[in-house]
Amino acid sequence: MALLVQKYGGTSVGTPERIRAVAGRVARAHRRGDRVVVVVSAMGHTTDELVELAQTVTGAPNPGAEHAREMDMLLSAGERISMALLAMAICQEGVEARSLTGSQAAIITDQSHTAARIVDVRADRVRETVEKGCVAIIAGFQGVSTAREITTLGRGGSDTTAVALARALEADRCEIYTDVEGVFTCDPRRVPDARIIPRISHDEMVELAQSGAQVMHARAVDLGAREPAMDIRVLSSFAQGAGQDDPTRGTLITRDPMVHEDQVVTGLAPARGYAKLIAHGLPRGMRTPTELLVALADAGVSVDMVTEAPDGQGGALLQLTVREDDLPRVREIAAQVAARLGGGGRIEERTGLSRIALVGRGMSGRPGVYAQAYRTLMDAGVEVEAVSTSSISITLLVPSDREDDALRALHDGFTLGRPAEAMAAAGVH
Amino acid sequence: MALLVQKYGGTSVGTPERIRAVAGRVARAHRRGDRVVVVVSAMGHTTDELVELAQTVTGAPNPGAEHAREMDMLLSAGERISMALLAMAICQEGVEARSLTGSQAAIITDQSHTAARIVDVRADRVRETVEKGCVAIIAGFQGVSTAREITTLGRGGSDTTAVALARALEADRCEIYTDVEGVFTCDPRRVPDARIIPRISHDEMVELAQSGAQVMHARAVDLGAREPAMDIRVLSSFAQGAGQDDPTRGTLITRDPMVHEDQVVTGLAPARGYAKLIAHGLPRGMRTPTELLVALADAGVSVDMVTEAPDGQGGALLQLTVREDDLPRVREIAAQVAARLGGGGRIEERTGLSRIALVGRGMSGRPGVYAQAYRTLMDAGVEVEAVSTSSISITLLVPSDREDDALRALHDGFTLGRPAEAMAAAGVH
Repeated sequence: MALLVQKYGGTSVGTPERIRAVAGRVARAHRRGDRVVVVVSAMGHTTDELVELAQTVTGAPNPGAEHAREMDMLLSAGERISMALLAMAICQEGVEARSLTGSQAAIITDQSHTAARIVDVRADRVRETVEKGCVAIIAGFQGVSTAREITTLGRGGSDTTAVALARALEADRCEIYTDVEGVFTCDPRRVPDARIIPRISHDEMVELAQSGAQVMHARAVDLGAREPAMDIRVLSSFAQGAGQDDPTRGTLITRDPMVHEDQVVTGLAPARGYAKLIAHGLPRGMRTPTELLVALADAGVSVDMVTEAPDGQGGALLQLTVREDDLPRVREIAAQVAARLGGGGRIEERTGLSRIALVGRGMSGRPGVYAQAYRTLMDAGVEVEAVSTSSISITLLVPSDREDDALRALHDGFTLGRPAEAMAAAGVH
Repeated sequence: MALLVQKYGGTSVGTPERIRAVAGRVARAHRRGDRVVVVVSAMGHTTDELVELAQTVTGAPNPGAEHAREMDMLLSAGERISMALLAMAICQEGVEARSLTGSQAAIITDQSHTAARIVDVRADRVRETVEKGCVAIIAGFQGVSTAREITTLGRGGSDTTAVALARALEADRCEIYTDVEGVFTCDPRRVPDARIIPRISHDEMVELAQSGAQVMHARAVDLGAREPAMDIRVLSSFAQGAGQDDPTRGTLITRDPMVHEDQVVTGLAPARGYAKLIAHGLPRGMRTPTELLVALADAGVSVDMVTEAPDGQGGALLQLTVREDDLPRVREIAAQVAARLGGGGRIEERTGLSRIALVGRGMSGRPGVYAQAYRTLMDAGVEVEAVSTSSISITLLVPSDREDDALRALHDGFTLGRPAEAMAAAGVH
């Protein structure tokens, strides 16, 4: 008798029909003899609608910090609705189910309203519930603070609740149900022969998530990676027919993914909306990038890639990659810092850029990967605007209008697509 | 510095604009130096919408007892939304406010999900909140059971929360804000010269509420009547301009209303949708009404008025007043009981009837009131189909198509309208 944590996102419970479908899935798992703990998000766009209500009432586009406590009270209503409805639907399947709020399930957080971190999970009540033969349904995204206040966990909150609960319960499996079939080598709408990655390591998944893969939030994966590591399976809640309850479908995020030695890249993640800024004629040395980065961090601007180089005229050249939205602020701050440092000449900008991350444990210690990525893009006629690397990833900045070409070329170049034989066997041509 | 409990119903917080208006009212009370505890219902039709969602998900027109726990979880989301929004709006007024769920405010109930009774209010956290100079906003209609489960209080729940909290806090005032200006002698849409009752006793208000006056629920008034009695003021949340913050407007429900000796009737409450059933030829004696009433109670049918009389042919005649909706069941049960008792002949029915309750402490010990009511209706040409009395009320059953005529005649006959001099002084003609 396995103990199972299943998380269902907002799309999976977006309508009464979908809630019933999830209830069927949960009930089948229960009838197979598993003890099931379900973590559920708010239905569809409930959270957005509640935020809009708050904006209308306060007359402010972004309810500020003074409203953070009440925003949490407000937003936590969302899961309360979905979890109660799901409990009723499971009950209609003839299986007992009880919903528990973040507070009832003792998801203890710090006091950072709207972006709380889980500090403890006292899962006794959840454990009692499943040991009585009930399905336990837990509100995702919310907890109770050490000051007995209702908190919400911010982005990726429900995934994080699921992984934290799975760890606290020492669950046998942690399943994240979503609206796609798993983690893909690349977005299949963009790269037609993209395939599901059957196994991926936590650290690779963190890189992919941070680089824009939407399927699961980096924060939750990171929590799963901590000792003792928790395997996480990502799979679709919309699967139907034979195989829909196959526990090996989707993607397993695991500590030891047993990748082939020759598999260098595991997946690609693209993200649009970047810009590049190049400041010329700055004083050389560490002080220039340091001051600029500190000033940007103080302004809350996150900088993606930084390159410093001589500008060929005795000064330094500093190249920054930032979100396009941040460009006006970055321009202003760069000019201020340059003026203060007594240097500063021309500032060049380039907008309409995309970031492509190549992620793979297999690239660690293989210097050729960098070169191969460059050559692949050169052969495809795509200009690389910037590049940065970590031990398991390479991030390339390319013009957004060439993003799809770059993705397909890299997907091909690193043989991420389904092998020809496998595709033929599967009837794909 | 007075401690004030203010309750705002669903209509009063039905839109963002109305929430802001309520926030203004609360903030003004706070600035006048009062400590304010607000009890709030769910916005407008939120509760109905949540019930509909539950119906769709369960596929059942009335989610049954097996869903009661989850219905409470679901419905309690409603106040969570309104109270958080109201707290933000009050904060925008420059006054600190904190919302507390029924559970956080320690509204302790029994374990009867969807119709829980308050068993205790441990108001420490509410008291601490107002003593810190914050407005405390409490979710109406909900509590936490002795088994640590979320419960809702059923009909009249938010009013009951307000009165229970006012009692627990020993509040100086308990104000029930609603969408009308107070308790009227009769519905002013039906009887043009109906006026606000400035003071009414708890027991009269209970009678009026039970007889169909919508303004406040009998259960909450009844709680206010218990020793030590809590005065309750009913007033409009939509009042504007000069006098909107006048603490003496509306109706005060109080133990000692100081009515004039000659004021016999305090108010009228009409209700439609009643029917009368007359069973002829039953065995005489107590057994007949007893068995019938027991059978109806077992079937969950509430009977309003019961008259037993000889039928003039050696048997008994039994007349029952019931809700029209219940008539088919009543007919069936009456036939079964009559057959079992070995009697039973013709069953007569009359539908399309209305109940009119005349309520007034002044009628106690005045036998003439009954006769005056009859004569008034006879003069107006309205037939009385049945009548019943209590120490402070007379209930008359009349044809619904004559209900308005009956109301106006009784309102006039018992001089409930504004005195002519007062109307002239107020510029009303």
